[in-house]
Amino acid sequence: MFVKEIEPGFYDTDALGHINNTRLPVWFELARNDLFAVFSPALDPKEWHLILARLEVDFIGELFYNDKVQVKTWVERLGNSSIVVLQEAWQGDRLGARGRVTMVHYDWSEKKSCRIPDPIRARLEKHFPSDAPDA
Amino acid sequence: MFVKEIEPGFYDTDALGHINNTRLPVWFELARNDLFAVFSPALDPKEWHLILARLEVDFIGELFYNDKVQVKTWVERLGNSSIVVLQEAWQGDRLGARGRVTMVHYDWSEKKSCRIPDPIRARLEKHFPSDAPDA
Amino acid sequence: MFVKEIEPGFYDTDALGHINNTRLPVWFELARNDLFAVFSPALDPKEWHLILARLEVDFIGELFYNDKVQVKTWVERLGNSSIVVLQEAWQGDRLGARGRVTMVHYDWSEKKSCRIPDPIRARLEKHFPSDAPDA
Amino acid sequence: MFVKEIEPGFYDTDALGHINNTRLPVWFELARNDLFAVFSPALDPKEWHLILARLEVDFIGELFYNDKVQVKTWVERLGNSSIVVLQEAWQGDRLGARGRVTMVHYDWSEKKSCRIPDPIRARLEKHFPSDAPDA
Repeated sequence: MFVKEIEPGFYDTDALGHINNTRLPVWFELARNDLFAVFSPALDPKEWHLILARLEVDFIGELFYNDKVQVKTWVERLGNSSIVVLQEAWQGDRLGARGRVTMVHYDWSEKKSCRIPDPIRARLEKHFPSDAPDA
Repeated sequence: MFVKEIEPGFYDTDALGHINNTRLPVWFELARNDLFAVFSPALDPKEWHLILARLEVDFIGELFYNDKVQVKTWVERLGNSSIVVLQEAWQGDRLGARGRVTMVHYDWSEKKSCRIPDPIRARLEKHFPSDAPDA
Repeated sequence: MFVKEIEPGFYDTDALGHINNTRLPVWFELARNDLFAVFSPALDPKEWHLILARLEVDFIGELFYNDKVQVKTWVERLGNSSIVVLQEAWQGDRLGARGRVTMVHYDWSEKKSCRIPDPIRARLEKHFPSDAPDA
Repeated sequence: MFVKEIEPGFYDTDALGHINNTRLPVWFELARNDLFAVFSPALDPKEWHLILARLEVDFIGELFYNDKVQVKTWVERLGNSSIVVLQEAWQGDRLGARGRVTMVHYDWSEKKSCRIPDPIRARLEKHFPSDAPDA
C-alpha cells in the first residue's frame, strides 16, 4: 500500500461547503505518483508507459477543507499489460471515497499495449491489498 | 438528450500532448448543468437537491486541444430517488470517453434521500436514450 | 475585442458560495484561445510561439454559478516581441474581474524571444482597446 | 516565512511539457492555508474573514512535474484592513514564479472591510520578509 497525504485547498471546495466530487479523480491521480515512479523512475513525461483506460469513484462520505486527506493506493489486479489500482480517500477515520482505475502499459511509439516487465511486476506485487496493514 | 459544446483550454492538456483524463469528470459535470436546471431552475446552490454517489469514465480515444468537444447527456435510468446519467464526449466523429454518474435526490436539511417529484420525472423521461438521435 | 462566453460549472464555486478566485486566470486563458489562433491557426501545441511572462487579476465583484460569463479580450500593448492583453469578466452588467497578461513571442527551439511577425501584428492591431464600438 | 511543499500531479502539466501557468495561483492559494489559519484557526469556511482583491504572478523559469515545489510565503505589507502577501515557488535552487496577493479582512455579514485585530497582527508580523533566520 502506498499512502499519500493531501492537504485540501480552498479551491477544492464547492458551494455546498464540502470538497467537490471532481477533485477525487485529481487527488487519486496525484496519489498514483508513487506508482508512476515504479514505471518511470525519473517521472519524465517523455518516458511514459501508461495510459488510463477507465476510472470509477464511489462517494461514501463528505470530505471537508479543514483536515488533511490520506489516500491509500493498492494494486488490486495485475494483468499481462494492464493493472487495476484501488484507492481510498480518508479524513481521520472517515472514508470519503473509494476509486479504481485501470491503466494499460503502453508503447506510445508503436501505439499498442505491451506486457508489464517482470522487474516492475515484482515491485507492484508488494502493493497487493494483502500487504501488511500499514506497510 | 442534452448536448453541450465545450471548448478545451490549453490548461486541459497534459505533458502527453492530449487532454488530461481528470478533465473528463469536470466536463461531464459542466454538461450536467442542463440536468441540474431541471431540479433547480435558478441553479441556486442554496436550493440544491442532488448528491453524487458514483462516477465512472471509460477512455476510448484521445481528445485534443484544438477542437471543440460535444458532450451528449442522457438519463439512462430513473429510480425512486436516484438517477443514472450516461454521457459521451465526442470530437467530430471520434468518441473520446463515455461516462456514467449516479446521483441521488437528497434533502440536505433532513440528510436523507427522497423521491424525485413527478413533474421532474416527466421532464427527465424526455431524455431517455430512446429519444430521437439528435433531439 | 474578442468575446468568449463561458458557462460556469458547479466545480468553479467554492465554500463561500461564489466563483473561486483561482478560476479567473483559467477562464482568461480559455478566452485567449482566439488570440492564440492568431499566432497558431491550427492551435497545435507542437507549433506554439508564446510564453506567459506575467499575469495579474483585480477582483472587482463576486461572480456566481448561475449565469454565463462574458470575457472580453483586448490587445492593450504590442511591443517588439511582447504583447499585453487586457481582459474583463462580466456577468450581465456587473464587472467581476479585470486581468492582464504579458506574453512573449518565443522561439522554443532557440529558447529566446523573437519579433512578432508583421502579418500577425496587423491582425492584433484590430483588437486594440480603441476598437470601442461594443466595448 | 511559511514554507509549503507541493508535489506536482501529472494534471498540473500542459502540452508544452511543463507546469501550466494557471496552476501557480492555485498552488499559492494552497500555500496560504497557513496564513488562513492565523485568521480562522479551525479553517471553517463558515467563519471566514478574508476576500481576495488582487493577485499577480511573474513567471521566471519553467517548473516541471518530476520534482517537489517549495512555496515560500511572506507578509509583505500589513495595512489597517488589508494585507499584501508575497510568495515564491522554487524547485530546488531554481525560482519558477513569484506572486503577490492583496487580501482584505472582511465582514461578510456587514459586507465591508474591517480592521485586522491586534492579536492577529502580532502573529502576522512574525512573517515579514525581515524574518530572515530560515529564509
